[in-house]
Amino acid sequence: MSAAFDKISIVGLGLVGASVALGLKKRGFVDRISAYDTDAESLEFGLSRSIIDEKATSIANCAEGSGLLVLAVPVRSIAASLAQLKDVTAIITDVGSVKSPVLKAGEEIFGESPANLVPGHPIAGSEQHGVEAADPNLFENHKVILTPAASTDEGAINSVEEMWQCLGARVIRMSAGHHDSVFAQTSHLPHLLAYALVDTLSVQGDSLEIFEYAAGGFRDFSRIAASDPVMWRDIFDANGEEVLDIMDKYMDELTEIRTLIAEGRMGELEALFKRAKVARDHFSSINVQPRKASD
Amino acid sequence: MSAAFDKISIVGLGLVGASVALGLKKRGFVDRISAYDTDAESLEFGLSRSIIDEKATSIANCAEGSGLLVLAVPVRSIAASLAQLKDVTAIITDVGSVKSPVLKAGEEIFGESPANLVPGHPIAGSEQHGVEAADPNLFENHKVILTPAASTDEGAINSVEEMWQCLGARVIRMSAGHHDSVFAQTSHLPHLLAYALVDTLSVQGDSLEIFEYAAGGFRDFSRIAASDPVMWRDIFDANGEEVLDIMDKYMDELTEIRTLIAEGRMGELEALFKRAKVARDHFSSINVQPRKASD
Repeated sequence: MSAAFDKISIVGLGLVGASVALGLKKRGFVDRISAYDTDAESLEFGLSRSIIDEKATSIANCAEGSGLLVLAVPVRSIAASLAQLKDVTAIITDVGSVKSPVLKAGEEIFGESPANLVPGHPIAGSEQHGVEAADPNLFENHKVILTPAASTDEGAINSVEEMWQCLGARVIRMSAGHHDSVFAQTSHLPHLLAYALVDTLSVQGDSLEIFEYAAGGFRDFSRIAASDPVMWRDIFDANGEEVLDIMDKYMDELTEIRTLIAEGRMGELEALFKRAKVARDHFSSINVQPRKASD
Repeated sequence: MSAAFDKISIVGLGLVGASVALGLKKRGFVDRISAYDTDAESLEFGLSRSIIDEKATSIANCAEGSGLLVLAVPVRSIAASLAQLKDVTAIITDVGSVKSPVLKAGEEIFGESPANLVPGHPIAGSEQHGVEAADPNLFENHKVILTPAASTDEGAINSVEEMWQCLGARVIRMSAGHHDSVFAQTSHLPHLLAYALVDTLSVQGDSLEIFEYAAGGFRDFSRIAASDPVMWRDIFDANGEEVLDIMDKYMDELTEIRTLIAEGRMGELEALFKRAKVARDHFSSINVQPRKASD
């Protein structure tokens, strides 16, 4: 099989960018990978381990002659990176956890939503960070969500889809707004609740002792509070509206539960627990994705 | 080594009661174990597998001639079981997740806190249930908390301590009130938050799809929402005051976070996340207990 692309560009050579690069090279999807990162050491490491073939001196320089460009930069840097790609004809995709702001940035920078911009979100991650942790199989059996606009070129969407499929992922399309609503509920809110729990307990007088006796429930719950604070700050900044919406519903539910306990309405509390258990057991039965961290 | 007791009684032959029985027999701590359970099949199974040596016809009958009696019944049944042990001289201990109500029930039934009552809470469990899941090593390397009253006999406390140490557990003493406050924070609140999250999401219009995309954060978080609804209803019934207290603090924190997001005060949000991460990383470093479920 000949390669799908002569050259692919990776902007941002962290865990995700480097894993895409390594995976595509290993599978022969591309002949040559050029990368740009503000951190020179990451580029050097990528070159020395043949994760990439060449290092670029700027985002625009990286994009030259590329058929496909993967923006694997943090959510907060996507708009600024896009601004440097105004004259690029390559297909552009990103890997951010929030998708509406990417489309919005495209519209603002290009005047209209550019046909070559295919926002994406691979639902995979690891507790490890950086180019050193690059894993060509990071996306194997994971979902990738693409959120193109109505004006996005169908050929561009298909190319990005093929890239992720080549890496072993299952690609799903949905609107950016729907994506951001679903992930506010299933990912962003849980992270917020975990940070809030650990913080609430840690400011209690006997916090040291509390953590010592913390048992299974807390351990599972709090693992996600070990996630990167800066990354999550940016996610809440980018998806604030959706997060506030589901947060309000959650706080209403907590208020209701508080009333049930305070008024001793234990039958209703049990009914609520049972409803949750049925839903959770259903979730377990349909979700057999391998366990990976912080996705 | 001769056995510490000729006869020990187990009231309630579920996972915990049967694991205590099997563990003590295997380690030679006792010559003979008598058990009582309202479920005749559990007793038959226990006898047939030599988990116990004899089945009793009532709680009082079970206690006859025993030096030590372990009440391994659900939290809601402890008071009623104690009421049937008024004339018993055996050392009595229980395994409930909430401790103040046990001492209170003792005071009410016996007129004063009985010297032979040593309330206990093994911090161990499993996702499995029932006598069939009996595991002689269930408590190995786990903590057991004893919450005796000032009037409890020191010899009785020591005997219960030796029983748990024989099972491989580490025994810690604290007041019942302190225990209930600590566990409201580290176990009861996390379970409540998990039930509330799963329930909130499951009543959303697109709940099926939401569960399909639910990623790592949610999966960890929701595992504990699969716990037994009846058991947890009883825990919240028994420890309502402490739970409401920490729940109010948690809801205050969520309200604060809501304000930070709504007002775009992202530096403060990041500081809060960082504080939580430091506390959580500290927790990980001190807590190396093997992972077991629903403790």
